[in-house]
Amino acid sequence: MNKFDKHIKDKFYTYIQNLQNTITSKLEELDGKAKFQEDIWQRTEGGGGRTRVIENGDIFEKGGVNISGVHGVLPKSMQTYFGVEDADFYACGLSLVLHPKNPMVPTVHANWRYFEMYDKEGKLVDQWFGGGQDLTPYYLFDEDGIHFHTICKEACDKHHPTFYKKYKERCDEYFWNTHRDEARGIGGLFFDYCKTSDGMNMQDWYNYVTEVGNSFLESYMPTVLKRKDLEYTKEQRDWQEIRRGRYVEFNLVHDKGTLFGLKTNGRMESILMSLPPHVQWRYNHQPEKDSEEEKLLKVLKKPKDWV
Amino acid sequence: MNKFDKHIKDKFYTYIQNLQNTITSKLEELDGKAKFQEDIWQRTEGGGGRTRVIENGDIFEKGGVNISGVHGVLPKSMQTYFGVEDADFYACGLSLVLHPKNPMVPTVHANWRYFEMYDKEGKLVDQWFGGGQDLTPYYLFDEDGIHFHTICKEACDKHHPTFYKKYKERCDEYFWNTHRDEARGIGGLFFDYCKTSDGMNMQDWYNYVTEVGNSFLESYMPTVLKRKDLEYTKEQRDWQEIRRGRYVEFNLVHDKGTLFGLKTNGRMESILMSLPPHVQWRYNHQPEKDSEEEKLLKVLKKPKDWV
Repeated sequence: MNKFDKHIKDKFYTYIQNLQNTITSKLEELDGKAKFQEDIWQRTEGGGGRTRVIENGDIFEKGGVNISGVHGVLPKSMQTYFGVEDADFYACGLSLVLHPKNPMVPTVHANWRYFEMYDKEGKLVDQWFGGGQDLTPYYLFDEDGIHFHTICKEACDKHHPTFYKKYKERCDEYFWNTHRDEARGIGGLFFDYCKTSDGMNMQDWYNYVTEVGNSFLESYMPTVLKRKDLEYTKEQRDWQEIRRGRYVEFNLVHDKGTLFGLKTNGRMESILMSLPPHVQWRYNHQPEKDSEEEKLLKVLKKPKDWV
Repeated sequence: MNKFDKHIKDKFYTYIQNLQNTITSKLEELDGKAKFQEDIWQRTEGGGGRTRVIENGDIFEKGGVNISGVHGVLPKSMQTYFGVEDADFYACGLSLVLHPKNPMVPTVHANWRYFEMYDKEGKLVDQWFGGGQDLTPYYLFDEDGIHFHTICKEACDKHHPTFYKKYKERCDEYFWNTHRDEARGIGGLFFDYCKTSDGMNMQDWYNYVTEVGNSFLESYMPTVLKRKDLEYTKEQRDWQEIRRGRYVEFNLVHDKGTLFGLKTNGRMESILMSLPPHVQWRYNHQPEKDSEEEKLLKVLKKPKDWV
């Protein structure tokens, strides 16, 4: 490990602190009504976080932009997961989920994280970045999907010619509701275990992940502005709430991050801020033939190329 | 195995068919507005079921009373779960969940089931009953908890002096939302792997399980009648929807039956009929001090004895 690597965690934690500030202030400005409520929390075993949640805004019905930096002895369940014995760890990241009120505005999720593992003598033995972002529309405007994916691709292309294609595919694979045989949304990027390899050292990965993080607002805000004042019916709102049910199903049944948090005594309210504010489940609900709702489902059944 | 045992599965399947008829007709009569919608489904690998769902009733906002009888090769995930190799199986049962509209009326869940396992020559090698029922109030009327548990206890006491105490405790253990450190509801009965032992043969277990099943309507209907016309505020309805969120969390994160169905390609709409119709998640919601809502939480944090 070179000298820079020793400081990468501090540098990345400072980065996500600043990014959280930037994102929450821009979103407050955009919403115009609601403000983020901040909760600082400590983890008994080491570290803590800064949770910021917005509720009942003009645009954002519920959302969170959270950071955390935790460390200590690697919990048993993580040992099994990573296939290692006794070890110490450090993990930090920014997680965000935004659930807009208007069903014409898509839900968005993003997470950028960094992980370190140490042996019992405190020597750094492994380190990697991970993360991504994905979009979950309730009504599909092709240009919104194209815009989101174009920004993702531009950020990737500055660092590696194959990243967009690779991480777009991984995103489609990861956010798959197997029990429904459909995607959660229209994808974006998903990457994990980004370590020194393929001509990328940790500084290169740092540059890539922060490039992606910096592109987030540009990938999402223009779409919010375009859709936030569109009119919608009660039926369209119902459809949004039914689809939000699928979001809950994914997060509680399949999402590794959520389940990991639930099973390792993470800060529950920070983890479950991802769940939508109002949700419906109806028995065997099917959209009408050739409707806008059915059009969305067709894309969710078979992820498409957007750029 | 004696001759009777060979026919116990047919006898129990006939029993749950009749019980489904009895329960759905009584509930329709009680509701007065909505009727159960019936869906007959087949399982590709063998067997099928009869799903009956009620929605938008005067009393029942959503609910299902489903039976199924499935058989074939034991799926891989079940082999691991039961710790057996190649085997065939037969499983049948009745599952019901009722979500009333009025937050003063508790949600109820019940399930009574029977399982058989065979070796590759078709010889019956194992068989057991399982099941139980539990109550999930949003506002706690002590007399409703006492009534529900009294009926459970009376059914148990006719068969074994220790069953009520034992299965009441198991119910409290099973319906525990570990990540929230609280019970889903105020419990009832939970039993599983009821095999020939402790002086009970399979006929005795059949008698016990059907006694419990037969007592269901008496355990729940009087409470519905007492509470269904009570007035409630928007805030009380919100509280119900927030608590329903915990119901969803339990079913999707912890409930073995639901997860088993989701991971073995069960009939999704029949499994997920258990999810409530309208649900809310709010960030870090806490009831007011000394409120009725807080009184409920105190009991959920520490299950109490009702009889």
